[in-house]
Amino acid sequence: MTDTFNKELQQIAARVRAIFADDALRPDFAPETLLEAALAYPSAGGKALRPALLAWCCRMLDGPEDAAVRAGAAVELYHTYTLVHDDVIDRDPLRRGQPSVHARMAKIGRAQFQLDNEETAHYGLSMAILAGDCLHCWAVKLLATLPALGADPAVALRLVERLQGVVGPAIVEGEARDIELPFTPVAEVTEAEMLQVIRTKTAALFAYCGWAGGLLARGVEDDAVRALAAFAEHAGIAFQLQDDVLGLIADEATLGKPVGNDLREGKRTLIIALGWARASAAQRAELAAVLGNQQAGLAEIAAATGLLRQSGAIADVQALASRYLDQALGHLAALPASPALALLRELAARMVIREK
Amino acid sequence: MTDTFNKELQQIAARVRAIFADDALRPDFAPETLLEAALAYPSAGGKALRPALLAWCCRMLDGPEDAAVRAGAAVELYHTYTLVHDDVIDRDPLRRGQPSVHARMAKIGRAQFQLDNEETAHYGLSMAILAGDCLHCWAVKLLATLPALGADPAVALRLVERLQGVVGPAIVEGEARDIELPFTPVAEVTEAEMLQVIRTKTAALFAYCGWAGGLLARGVEDDAVRALAAFAEHAGIAFQLQDDVLGLIADEATLGKPVGNDLREGKRTLIIALGWARASAAQRAELAAVLGNQQAGLAEIAAATGLLRQSGAIADVQALASRYLDQALGHLAALPASPALALLRELAARMVIREK
Repeated sequence: MTDTFNKELQQIAARVRAIFADDALRPDFAPETLLEAALAYPSAGGKALRPALLAWCCRMLDGPEDAAVRAGAAVELYHTYTLVHDDVIDRDPLRRGQPSVHARMAKIGRAQFQLDNEETAHYGLSMAILAGDCLHCWAVKLLATLPALGADPAVALRLVERLQGVVGPAIVEGEARDIELPFTPVAEVTEAEMLQVIRTKTAALFAYCGWAGGLLARGVEDDAVRALAAFAEHAGIAFQLQDDVLGLIADEATLGKPVGNDLREGKRTLIIALGWARASAAQRAELAAVLGNQQAGLAEIAAATGLLRQSGAIADVQALASRYLDQALGHLAALPASPALALLRELAARMVIREK
Repeated sequence: MTDTFNKELQQIAARVRAIFADDALRPDFAPETLLEAALAYPSAGGKALRPALLAWCCRMLDGPEDAAVRAGAAVELYHTYTLVHDDVIDRDPLRRGQPSVHARMAKIGRAQFQLDNEETAHYGLSMAILAGDCLHCWAVKLLATLPALGADPAVALRLVERLQGVVGPAIVEGEARDIELPFTPVAEVTEAEMLQVIRTKTAALFAYCGWAGGLLARGVEDDAVRALAAFAEHAGIAFQLQDDVLGLIADEATLGKPVGNDLREGKRTLIIALGWARASAAQRAELAAVLGNQQAGLAEIAAATGLLRQSGAIADVQALASRYLDQALGHLAALPASPALALLRELAARMVIREK
């Protein structure tokens, strides 16, 4: 299966890139540097997970492949828009080992206009806000062109409505919570709250992929469409739980960003919440010295990670990710047999069993 | 006419407010503070110009009023999203005499989480980015619900496609140029370039109002729809030219923001470009000392404004605004008679002949 899977995934990725490069599908837009900077994200190691998920969910129900791939490209752009704004908000200089959009634009601005440090940073963040806005527009525009590929306009409009009325606001809500949680005492952060952040910030867009792929095939939201959405949502939650694990224990070169950044940023994750609840007073003091401390050194990060590991918090979150993966696969069981089934199974597994 | 006009305009504004308050039309979204902050813009002195323009253009062609008002509400939200992001980019603490979204959110964050100055500012801008993103989603969601009011889904989808594929990217392009122009020597800024910024940043959304109102009535883009779009675009250009004039010569209390801010921010406007071209070397030195100088005092601003007035630049831009208004009205002449004609004429006139 793995060979077929890789070939199929690469095909989806290539088709998505072709859509990004199609002038007729691009927004009317002049400053090329902005789009280049924004498109660096899906190009640099973008695995086209979301487009593949949407396209194969559509294939599960014998839906139209071209429309599904274009909708998948729209989701990838939408995801990229949220990453660009998120990196501004998190002041993250790197994304997938490359400069984030605001860092890249700041460098361009400094060179072009000889700006001082403060103006350079503000130029970078201003352009990144606009780049994200443009990607947001572009994503929705792509959905609006689906009737040109034979999709029912009413179905295309429902794709737009759910993306903008449910998914986009959920992502904003998740990010807003993500901003505020570091100011909340760790002891007050509950497991339910952490899972809610994951559901909104990450899993909502995955769920959308399952739902949209199904709706393009069926035209109405029936049980099969709902099963695909539930499959994709559970896989998305598993993906994010694993992401939090990798942020602490991955190999730094493989990960493409400093390991332990979540700790330095004081990000609240389920691992932190569980680890804190199980820690002694002395251990909590050790964790507290690292959480949100941008200056925390490698040794302190390693010690805090060691604590979280010993408490069983990391293993428990990994086990929870596996349970969500199982639940995801369970939702596939109710669907009619299809050659896409094996692809979806492997995709879900890879969203969890991975090293970066 | 004026009484009828005011009554009709207030009716549109009230209907738009009712749409904003309708939970069924709102995005699923938890942090209420974000939405409240963002909705302060259309509430504080929002004149509902754009919704009225769209609704009356639709009425000109006997189109469906309910759908047009909802589309107008969508445009107002879209406009608000761009203002929220623009205020972050321009670091503007005020909008219509009230704190801008990032300033308001910063204050809330400081009180709630006891942040220091730098973190307070970053919290405010982060939340303003998200508030803008949420308004962007909400606007498009409203368009996607138009079939519930009887609109053809294919027409609703075309409204989405043009907003996201043409208008939104045009606004982004205009803002990007607006960011970069202050770094460009005034002498190199051309009239054509300044008009292009106005066309993209401001007039594109006005043109969309004419086009969308027409399309909702006709279902296809015919000559009447194009005439309404051209009418609205020309009125939009006239509106912005007048805005630049008022930014220099209005009464400060009426305007709701410091007069002369465009000069302090080093904004490039057509007035500056024309005034500079006509100034002597000594006068240019005087202008240069004020342009982009945030510390410029009232006396310096007054002297620079005096120079621009004496050069005839302000009067010429005002005359140009009048010419665009005439052209706008000219486009109405080709349309069939309608009771909405008088409303559109007065609306266009008020977009130019105003004190704030």
